[in-house]
Amino acid sequence: MARIIVALALLGGAAAQLTIDAVNPKVVEAEYAVRGKILDRAGEIERDMAENPDKWPFKEIVRCNIGNPQALGQAPPAFARAVLSQVVLPKSKGSKQVKERADAYRAALRGGVGAYSDSQGVSLVREEVAKFISDRDGYPASPADIFLTDGASAGVRHLTQLLVSGPQDGVLAPAPQYPLYSATTTLFDGTLGSYYLDEAADWAAPVQELKKAYDDVVEKGATPKLLVIINPGNPTGASLPRASLEAIVRFVEERPGLVLAADEVYQENVYGDAPPFISFKKIVRDLDSKIPLVSFHSISKGFTGECGLRGGYFELTNIDTAVKAQLTKLASVSLCSNTMGQVAVGLMVNPPTSGPELKAYEKEKKEKLASLERRANKVAAALDALEGVSCVRPQGAMYLFPSITLPDAAVKAAKRSSMAPDAFYALRLLEGTGLVTVPGSGFGQKNGTWHFRTTFLPAEKQIDNVVQKLAGFHESFLAKYGGGGEL
Amino acid sequence: MARIIVALALLGGAAAQLTIDAVNPKVVEAEYAVRGKILDRAGEIERDMAENPDKWPFKEIVRCNIGNPQALGQAPPAFARAVLSQVVLPKSKGSKQVKERADAYRAALRGGVGAYSDSQGVSLVREEVAKFISDRDGYPASPADIFLTDGASAGVRHLTQLLVSGPQDGVLAPAPQYPLYSATTTLFDGTLGSYYLDEAADWAAPVQELKKAYDDVVEKGATPKLLVIINPGNPTGASLPRASLEAIVRFVEERPGLVLAADEVYQENVYGDAPPFISFKKIVRDLDSKIPLVSFHSISKGFTGECGLRGGYFELTNIDTAVKAQLTKLASVSLCSNTMGQVAVGLMVNPPTSGPELKAYEKEKKEKLASLERRANKVAAALDALEGVSCVRPQGAMYLFPSITLPDAAVKAAKRSSMAPDAFYALRLLEGTGLVTVPGSGFGQKNGTWHFRTTFLPAEKQIDNVVQKLAGFHESFLAKYGGGGEL
Repeated sequence: MARIIVALALLGGAAAQLTIDAVNPKVVEAEYAVRGKILDRAGEIERDMAENPDKWPFKEIVRCNIGNPQALGQAPPAFARAVLSQVVLPKSKGSKQVKERADAYRAALRGGVGAYSDSQGVSLVREEVAKFISDRDGYPASPADIFLTDGASAGVRHLTQLLVSGPQDGVLAPAPQYPLYSATTTLFDGTLGSYYLDEAADWAAPVQELKKAYDDVVEKGATPKLLVIINPGNPTGASLPRASLEAIVRFVEERPGLVLAADEVYQENVYGDAPPFISFKKIVRDLDSKIPLVSFHSISKGFTGECGLRGGYFELTNIDTAVKAQLTKLASVSLCSNTMGQVAVGLMVNPPTSGPELKAYEKEKKEKLASLERRANKVAAALDALEGVSCVRPQGAMYLFPSITLPDAAVKAAKRSSMAPDAFYALRLLEGTGLVTVPGSGFGQKNGTWHFRTTFLPAEKQIDNVVQKLAGFHESFLAKYGGGGEL
Repeated sequence: MARIIVALALLGGAAAQLTIDAVNPKVVEAEYAVRGKILDRAGEIERDMAENPDKWPFKEIVRCNIGNPQALGQAPPAFARAVLSQVVLPKSKGSKQVKERADAYRAALRGGVGAYSDSQGVSLVREEVAKFISDRDGYPASPADIFLTDGASAGVRHLTQLLVSGPQDGVLAPAPQYPLYSATTTLFDGTLGSYYLDEAADWAAPVQELKKAYDDVVEKGATPKLLVIINPGNPTGASLPRASLEAIVRFVEERPGLVLAADEVYQENVYGDAPPFISFKKIVRDLDSKIPLVSFHSISKGFTGECGLRGGYFELTNIDTAVKAQLTKLASVSLCSNTMGQVAVGLMVNPPTSGPELKAYEKEKKEKLASLERRANKVAAALDALEGVSCVRPQGAMYLFPSITLPDAAVKAAKRSSMAPDAFYALRLLEGTGLVTVPGSGFGQKNGTWHFRTTFLPAEKQIDNVVQKLAGFHESFLAKYGGGGEL
């Protein structure tokens, strides 16, 4: 037998197999928890449920690991879809406004959505974005400074690649942070510095922490090139007040060479009496600041929720023309972002302007945002009421990031399974309820604290059930492992 | 005045401006000629024409720089568009087959095209791709080995990033080559080795040249990790015969650690009596070889031509599960490829199967491919007939890559303008006719030879006009700079 295996190995040229040793170590090192092990386990369970439906104490897997509203039942934006459908296939009948918009996009795309666009994105949509920005901020914006991208993620990748090429280049990102930033920094071999958000102060971003992170990166021998601010926050939901935004701009001003990357994809998702969203572009102009700023937006969030179409943009402020040319070249290597996503960006920033389409749009927007707010408050209140759980009231975005006190026995059990305690908790939650969440350790958190991130996106009719499941699980978890324990 | 400027500079924190010095040197170094300077100049001329229509000796800019068929009038695939339109917005009326396909994609996407899919791509489309591959090759293919991507370019980026992290990692690519490969290698800081295709032998890929390139990279101190074969070729159009494919597989077999990257996006574009397309997957299985292989396909080429939708896939053959997991992680960092592109991949590999839809599809396919072939032959023959121009008869793909003999005076004039002679020629061609082509120096060519790449994609009714323009320009160019001269 052994001889046969050896012979086969030789015959098959087994030495030529590609193994993990040949892989870029930075790729191996990178982590992206939002689609990590808990989600893999959810997929396994789902496949098992198809064969053994009675084995599991729940009827379905509910993916709260990611802000994916349409996957949880949110309807797509009606006007935008009507236009998109006619961009794909023109129709003779239907609303005049829909037809005109579709015709305009098709014409601007010179060959329709089946043709490559300019690498920076089709000019009509960039004009729509520039108008949206100038209306929002009260300052001019130019289509020449707008880049359309496959979701905001692709833009973040381009910006990181533009500035980070080795350990000498630093990136400052929040903790907790959306792990796109740590993953991208690792992939481009940069040095990550984390500034800690203040959970006790509604997850504020204290300048003192920015300074610490900056100095920390400098101490490691790197030059900080990018400061990432996520506002409204992910996973925290914090909507930063004007004073905080101004302090951050001043912080960057004092540090030449630092570029501010403003992740503002949740700008529509601000709830209740939270500080209203103000763009960094506006703050920079208000302060007459010359700091280099790159601002990101996306069709995946807000009340648009068109995640799958992969549309987004970034705007450059105070960025040298020669640098812009390098970004254009980077975009050109993949030819262009997808044209349906580009058109969807145009429809997000330039909604219907008159007639029944406008009324329907406004109703849809109002209802969707109100529903998100109701669900946010409901889930947050329910979590906050649980023993050993504390949940900051959500100001914005689509997530809750409650802090959980885990009993000693649970921490020990996690250790025995070689897992972070909050990953252990999230895994038990999945296996007990079918709810998919992401452990706080995937986002970064202060040592000795444990969290998990959950969206509050399940449909309104489902949300009570989700809350019950969360509460029921938490109680049985405490009952099993005993209350009290370490923070 | 001087004092005011100084004061403003201080106030504005001008030192904080982002300049080119801060940019990743690999980004600065990378070149992508297909969307390079000639295209920029075309944009300038187009803007100028809008204001001064009589200034230029032509009525329009015709972009032959890139394989973008719908931009030049090719109709989108009818059945696919009908389904895509209903994936965006379901309708109660219409063809049963269209409706069923659209419903199936929406259901498989769990929330429709507005929801993020699995990072690897929606399983239904991966199943369709696997069936397409196994029907094509006569060997099994598994959806688990298929990754859906934003066009083939994104897949090539993922594969290069997976394997190349510094100068110690080599990539072997053809010369001439589609510059995606050199650009991506430079961006990831790898060492490029070029193997020269043999123009005199229908642009064959001689193993002797592969060996030279391999040894050359080894001599530079790098380990060759990727061998890129573009078949049918871009920009050459060569469709490699079976013996050549087999020799290449044997070459890889003898060099453990080398991965074969098969760019097969032009697999539908093989014309006349050229060697028929055979996939490397089939050759690897026929030879019972164990070489690691990654095969790319796209919706942008063939007769589908859906460039703007950005859909593509790659298939892994003989790749370790642990390596695959790293690719999945890379894909997950940008969440998923765009869902419309994913569905369009499904529709390309799984066209209508019955009824009037099937008949219409077959007619469309036949007519489009026949038209491409007619245009290829017409432009190639016209070019080949010109004094000092030699054009290999196109076997496949969408391009011609004629060799041009430039008069001494033209070479000198180019030198005076600090341009490569063929870039000088392509610029004059643009300014004289409005035709956008890409100089051969952007693809790589043997020293002392000059070429340009042009697509033969202008619509059938335009093509005679394009041919006339090319010929007229070439004659006047020779008249101006004198015939003869260096090869």
